[in-house]
Amino acid sequence: MPAVSGKVNPDLLKERSNCTFNVEEFAVWWNGGPEKLKEKREIEKVLLEDEKEDDDVPISYLSHKELYEASTKKSARLYIKLRRRLPKIELKYGNYAESLGALRKVVNLMRGASAVSEGYPFGVHFSMFLPTILSQGTVEQQKKWALKALNLDIIGTYAQTELGHGTFIRGLETRADFDPRKNEFILSSPTRSSYKWWPGGLGHTVNHVIVLAQLYTRGVHRGLHPFIVQVRDLETHKPMPGVIIGEIGPKIGMKAVNNGFLGFKNVRIPLENMLAKNAQVGAGGVFTKSPASVLTYGTMVFVRVLIVRDAANQLSSAVTIATRYSAVRRQSPIDPNKPEPQIIDHVTQQLKLFPNISKAILFNIVADKVWNIYNEVTEELGRGQLDRLPELHGLSCGLKAVCSADAAAGVEVCRLSCGGHGYMTSSNFPSLYGFATAACTYEGENTVMLLQTARYLMKVWRMALDGKKLMPTVDYLTKYVRTNPRPSKWDNSLLGMIDALECAAANKVRIAFDSVEKRKAAGMGPEEAANMTGIELTQAAVLHTRAYMVRTGYEEVKRITATLSPAIATVLNQVFELFAIDTFFTCMGDLLRFSGLTHTDLDGLQKKLESLLSKIRVNAVGIVDGFDIPDCVLKSTLGAYDGNVYERMFAEAQKSPLNKDPVNESFHLYLKPLMKSNL
Amino acid sequence: MPAVSGKVNPDLLKERSNCTFNVEEFAVWWNGGPEKLKEKREIEKVLLEDEKEDDDVPISYLSHKELYEASTKKSARLYIKLRRRLPKIELKYGNYAESLGALRKVVNLMRGASAVSEGYPFGVHFSMFLPTILSQGTVEQQKKWALKALNLDIIGTYAQTELGHGTFIRGLETRADFDPRKNEFILSSPTRSSYKWWPGGLGHTVNHVIVLAQLYTRGVHRGLHPFIVQVRDLETHKPMPGVIIGEIGPKIGMKAVNNGFLGFKNVRIPLENMLAKNAQVGAGGVFTKSPASVLTYGTMVFVRVLIVRDAANQLSSAVTIATRYSAVRRQSPIDPNKPEPQIIDHVTQQLKLFPNISKAILFNIVADKVWNIYNEVTEELGRGQLDRLPELHGLSCGLKAVCSADAAAGVEVCRLSCGGHGYMTSSNFPSLYGFATAACTYEGENTVMLLQTARYLMKVWRMALDGKKLMPTVDYLTKYVRTNPRPSKWDNSLLGMIDALECAAANKVRIAFDSVEKRKAAGMGPEEAANMTGIELTQAAVLHTRAYMVRTGYEEVKRITATLSPAIATVLNQVFELFAIDTFFTCMGDLLRFSGLTHTDLDGLQKKLESLLSKIRVNAVGIVDGFDIPDCVLKSTLGAYDGNVYERMFAEAQKSPLNKDPVNESFHLYLKPLMKSNL
Repeated sequence: MPAVSGKVNPDLLKERSNCTFNVEEFAVWWNGGPEKLKEKREIEKVLLEDEKEDDDVPISYLSHKELYEASTKKSARLYIKLRRRLPKIELKYGNYAESLGALRKVVNLMRGASAVSEGYPFGVHFSMFLPTILSQGTVEQQKKWALKALNLDIIGTYAQTELGHGTFIRGLETRADFDPRKNEFILSSPTRSSYKWWPGGLGHTVNHVIVLAQLYTRGVHRGLHPFIVQVRDLETHKPMPGVIIGEIGPKIGMKAVNNGFLGFKNVRIPLENMLAKNAQVGAGGVFTKSPASVLTYGTMVFVRVLIVRDAANQLSSAVTIATRYSAVRRQSPIDPNKPEPQIIDHVTQQLKLFPNISKAILFNIVADKVWNIYNEVTEELGRGQLDRLPELHGLSCGLKAVCSADAAAGVEVCRLSCGGHGYMTSSNFPSLYGFATAACTYEGENTVMLLQTARYLMKVWRMALDGKKLMPTVDYLTKYVRTNPRPSKWDNSLLGMIDALECAAANKVRIAFDSVEKRKAAGMGPEEAANMTGIELTQAAVLHTRAYMVRTGYEEVKRITATLSPAIATVLNQVFELFAIDTFFTCMGDLLRFSGLTHTDLDGLQKKLESLLSKIRVNAVGIVDGFDIPDCVLKSTLGAYDGNVYERMFAEAQKSPLNKDPVNESFHLYLKPLMKSNL
Repeated sequence: MPAVSGKVNPDLLKERSNCTFNVEEFAVWWNGGPEKLKEKREIEKVLLEDEKEDDDVPISYLSHKELYEASTKKSARLYIKLRRRLPKIELKYGNYAESLGALRKVVNLMRGASAVSEGYPFGVHFSMFLPTILSQGTVEQQKKWALKALNLDIIGTYAQTELGHGTFIRGLETRADFDPRKNEFILSSPTRSSYKWWPGGLGHTVNHVIVLAQLYTRGVHRGLHPFIVQVRDLETHKPMPGVIIGEIGPKIGMKAVNNGFLGFKNVRIPLENMLAKNAQVGAGGVFTKSPASVLTYGTMVFVRVLIVRDAANQLSSAVTIATRYSAVRRQSPIDPNKPEPQIIDHVTQQLKLFPNISKAILFNIVADKVWNIYNEVTEELGRGQLDRLPELHGLSCGLKAVCSADAAAGVEVCRLSCGGHGYMTSSNFPSLYGFATAACTYEGENTVMLLQTARYLMKVWRMALDGKKLMPTVDYLTKYVRTNPRPSKWDNSLLGMIDALECAAANKVRIAFDSVEKRKAAGMGPEEAANMTGIELTQAAVLHTRAYMVRTGYEEVKRITATLSPAIATVLNQVFELFAIDTFFTCMGDLLRFSGLTHTDLDGLQKKLESLLSKIRVNAVGIVDGFDIPDCVLKSTLGAYDGNVYERMFAEAQKSPLNKDPVNESFHLYLKPLMKSNL
């Protein structure tokens, strides 16, 4: 546990001494083993020192432009420091998985290390520019660009979204016309809405961009392909001829990411700048298409699993802040004869915090599980087996949508649980929310994601009707497709709850399927029928995903707890049970519709919920301590390990440039004339 | 409708020509009649001109300090302009209602006119400082301070919340000790947590503060009372001796409000600075207490009704932006043989927008109704009748909590419905959310509010058990207290829905009541029993409030539509029906638990929902146009009347100071060295 200089809040000390398990053991498990935890802490120490040597004005006081400059300065210095500490990174050209494995550490470290809480301007360089070269480039292309990118000799980003098109990428308008006389592509932005918009770092940071553009050769449209385009001069950083480039302005969060726009006025690039691992253009414009367009699925699944893990991380930060604050803050007597209690003793407060603790933990467990499935499927892909790809696609879309939405909502519940103080930037909730809510939109807008999952569910329901065998994650539907059994007698057990959830999910799938079919029978086209059934389809996808998470959580927790000490196993079981019951209450409308739950059952559930809250109460601070998020990453006046909330808030306010002078000049300029004016 | 220079987006033109009702008639109704609409537009014209003459860098690019200075400048100029246009304001000393009536126009105008979308530094001066002088001061005190305040000869704020205490005001620590030798109060801040924290304008704007402090006379604690304290010199603006004052730093929203902190080192103020309409301190420290502490209820109710109206306003802005954008934006084909549709044609998009349109309208209708009740009760208070006060308190607490939470969630749903572009500050969603979510915390944290409502419900349930007559808004409980009838046979009618909602609410009240009683019977004290039952209590309060809103909406819409043209009446009925069904789906778990709804009933409801969405679809743009929110108030690149979304977004980005230079100096300072470094 961290060394704390100065006094720790006595309520936090009390919480820590009451904790029933070994927090360090929890931290080891949570962080993936003793070596990983050790390494994480070493890196954080570097960061901590870094923080100390750069104690400037907090970034929240800076202007948009100053923030960009400060974050560029800080992240450049940090990258150099990190690289010098890490062993040499070996890229294996032609082996994407190995290269990415080698890269992942630096990507993760820079992410975790984000110089400031608002991101940094070359994040997309590591998370997308370099990986895309490795996954979409030929070995020659990888040799040409990958090492340069790794060493930041060139800095790049990935430009797909345009002003007029996001999730529906076939609608993108940027063109790459092949000129066979010169063996060049001509990039152009035919409309205002075709300008690239959003790529991180694009504004004033990068000099190279992977541009997704509609390829035309020999006058024929060949679909969307990636092109490497140099957009700024490497020496002067001036935009290249025909390149219109700049930044898009302020946003809710990720304020240091330097998102940009990009337009092309007939910019020429050589033939070899089309990333050509899958599709190729030959001399004279002969086009060879990708062997399987389904291969692009893989990367998308990868990113969506990352988002589930991000959701877990954001929630674990949010609950760490809110739980510690709730142990420190005293307010509103319960017993009028006693002093005001810690607000964590209000049951309504527990209901805000503890289900979000359970989500942080279960999202991470589910992310691990899906990560394993992803690796299996990727390996199968390498052997030419594609059959599990649609299942994984359906699963990852649903998880991405549900977890990102729950995480964003959970961060806000945690923030609101801290009252007015959560509203302050210095709580760091605003930055956390900025990241969490962005994930509801990027990498596939959530409603579109749910419709993807629903489309898969419609397909498998049809297969089940046809008597075909279903994939493991949807196999439960088979039970409901011909008959419609009520869930087995309700016994308040976890398996009973999972059964009830799956029964409800299967029935929602059935209802959506029947609605689509009815509409088609009435003469609607399949797409129009699906659009008109959109509400029922998305609901089915959500419920299916939630049922999957509870079943998976159940199985994984059983497996995990077998490896842990009894004290932690007990806590983890409680946490899982709370997750399951919380899911149950969230889906209550559907559950009551399709199950035979009685008043007595519901009373029992309510008691169970209240009893779990009180059991977790004693260990809540211990659990969030076990996440092992150091103060320099948490960046919160409310959530620091020592709990000195009011002192930190006051100290942070003192740093305001407005507080440097007792009288701001606007008094003399505007207020005094107003006071003296004759109204 | 506004004069538009330049081209209007053709999709918006089409929407407007398809609208089935007269938008101007809607605007007249929505804005409270032709005179009010005319006046509103005249004022907005002043603002519009104001905007034009001050086309500086958008505030979102400014630093925290620059933003304060810009907003002070702009709001000072605006106040002078507005006052010169308005007729003279006559304060009636000793008649709070009349004075406030005279004030309301300037308060509302300055609110609506907020120079910038992030509030302004003397908002609390008008909304709380001046009203508190008028409501809590003696006539002499009103004469001394009110006119000066109205003319901004003095600028004030209202300081209640402290670092360590918010909603639970009895816990406040700031002291006012009476010194009988000098007839003075000595104000002091005994701890760090006793520092005042949050008051708007306190940082660097105000020179006077109404301080809520614990009064001690003759060594005895006399409770919390308001004191007027001068905190800065009127000529130099320097802090007065013993006054520690500054601003608290950045927040999620309301960024131009200049919230501040305040500590006292034995600051002396004269006897007459205690606002003494209710309680008084006489010479020598003789204390006379307030005749009825319940009188303070009144102002709190007033503010909470205002918050319901704010919620309606915030939602109407949010749906205006999102609806217009959804008519302009084209994305994701429904029929693959047709061009991409307006996203408003996706049914899932309609489900995001139209229920929030219905909430904006119904919240406003409910606010009108409660405003009338408030006025009746205030009049009764004047005649010494206090019996309706607890009912009004219970009602207004529940409405404040439910409407502020729904509005904040609704703003976010609207924002997310605009995809990535909603994430940009220039959409103005971030500012709207900043305001909407703040209302979940200020003027009584929402969970505490719900517990207040629940406490009232427990009291009346007990009364009903005892056979006593209940007040009108809770009278429905009587029906369920002895027997527990299922709602009358479900017929898909609105009255049937209201019946089902009330049945569910009554049963939730019963469950909470029984849980509290059971815990008390088991030996718990009443407060501890209430705390342990907190989840069921808040749920009962929410459901009761929702049932109230639907019933009130039903009655009010019936009354209102009788005065409108059939075309608008039809639309308003559809909007109300959607509001009711949306509420129904929100409460589905409880409804299914306590009603006899069948699968067929639920299928019918789903069809009804889908049919209402498609009916409202044709008029959605017309309705939001009818809110008549001009571009200068909406301040959104996505929501402007002309629908030129991409042009505005691009133009706004061009204003970024970062885009003024093609190469930012951080390239030479940090990026180039990074690129050249030997990693």
